[in-house]
Amino acid sequence: MPNPIDLSLYLVLDANLCPTPEQMVETALEAVRGGATVVQLRAPEWKKRKQLDAALLLKKALCGTGVPLIIDDHLDIALICRADGVHVGQADLPVNEVRKLMGKNVIIGLSVGSQEEMQTVTEDVDYLGIGPVFATTTKKDAGKAIGLQELKALKKQTSLPVVAIGGINESNAKETMLTGVDGIAVVSAICGAASPYEATKKLRAEIKDGD
Amino acid sequence: MPNPIDLSLYLVLDANLCPTPEQMVETALEAVRGGATVVQLRAPEWKKRKQLDAALLLKKALCGTGVPLIIDDHLDIALICRADGVHVGQADLPVNEVRKLMGKNVIIGLSVGSQEEMQTVTEDVDYLGIGPVFATTTKKDAGKAIGLQELKALKKQTSLPVVAIGGINESNAKETMLTGVDGIAVVSAICGAASPYEATKKLRAEIKDGD
Repeated sequence: MPNPIDLSLYLVLDANLCPTPEQMVETALEAVRGGATVVQLRAPEWKKRKQLDAALLLKKALCGTGVPLIIDDHLDIALICRADGVHVGQADLPVNEVRKLMGKNVIIGLSVGSQEEMQTVTEDVDYLGIGPVFATTTKKDAGKAIGLQELKALKKQTSLPVVAIGGINESNAKETMLTGVDGIAVVSAICGAASPYEATKKLRAEIKDGD
Repeated sequence: MPNPIDLSLYLVLDANLCPTPEQMVETALEAVRGGATVVQLRAPEWKKRKQLDAALLLKKALCGTGVPLIIDDHLDIALICRADGVHVGQADLPVNEVRKLMGKNVIIGLSVGSQEEMQTVTEDVDYLGIGPVFATTTKKDAGKAIGLQELKALKKQTSLPVVAIGGINESNAKETMLTGVDGIAVVSAICGAASPYEATKKLRAEIKDGD
């Protein structure tokens, strides 16, 4: 990874809450203005062409903001749009193959949800997404919520930067940060907000208090 | 494309009818022994890791048979397993991006189902999959059946090799070949057969009669 990534407020764009590429861009730009530090495109429900359209628009929109664009799951889309990173889950492509295909300058994130899954972390991984911390409705195949204690325990086992994910919103952002994680990943708390800008600003304030 | 591809009997492996990577390999090898000339992996229901496992096993199993392995939709899996080709639909990644990412030696197939879609064919495409010719149950997002007349009309508009797809089985293989197409693509007629080997042999005989 060329530079340390600021994981503090990591927006995951959701295909159901932002049903068009244009709405994704709008939400992403509002969130970045409000203080989001990473943007991830996660739209497993969409065909690849629509995902690529969104990725290309997001890449262009984020250019010059310093906020990296991470693509969930699909290396081919990441390669075509020259994304800054990719994020994979335990059932997605293995991180050693991801590194080989993407090269050394691309950020690789891996989802981890248990002590067992922590064993799959290798030197190819740049950051971890740990969760789901709380119950979530935006990811169908997310496992059972692990809670703050387990999040803290898993965070202690790694020297990699960690972003907590799963059901995180304004009400629990501060206590989540107090576990020692480097940031929170947020889906519906921003994508489902009337004003993604205001929602991000509020989360930003919670994170600062939690630092 | 390095060599002309023999599209005459094109097996599409179905994730529902072959629910494990091992069953896919077994079905593919039986079909190749029975006369299948192409094998495509199409498993949109599976997570990428499982698709990659199947792709790697298939690539190894087909090695030395002369039968190319085509990956549906996912260029990243095709790149990792060094597949012989990729197949994309109209809503998948655009063929010019596919060519750029895969290089000049990889076979690129494109699905076409109408006069309008025929306009999307470019020099990056090596063969066309035209259909669905008949009603199909194995592809959820397949359009309305186009029938043999439309298949014939579309085939006439291109100099590219054409494989007909959609609801093709032993009962209609011969009449499908009589439209002038270069081959038939078969899913359930092989994957759902008690003996994929016997089913392929019978289809092979029908194709010969139709030549």
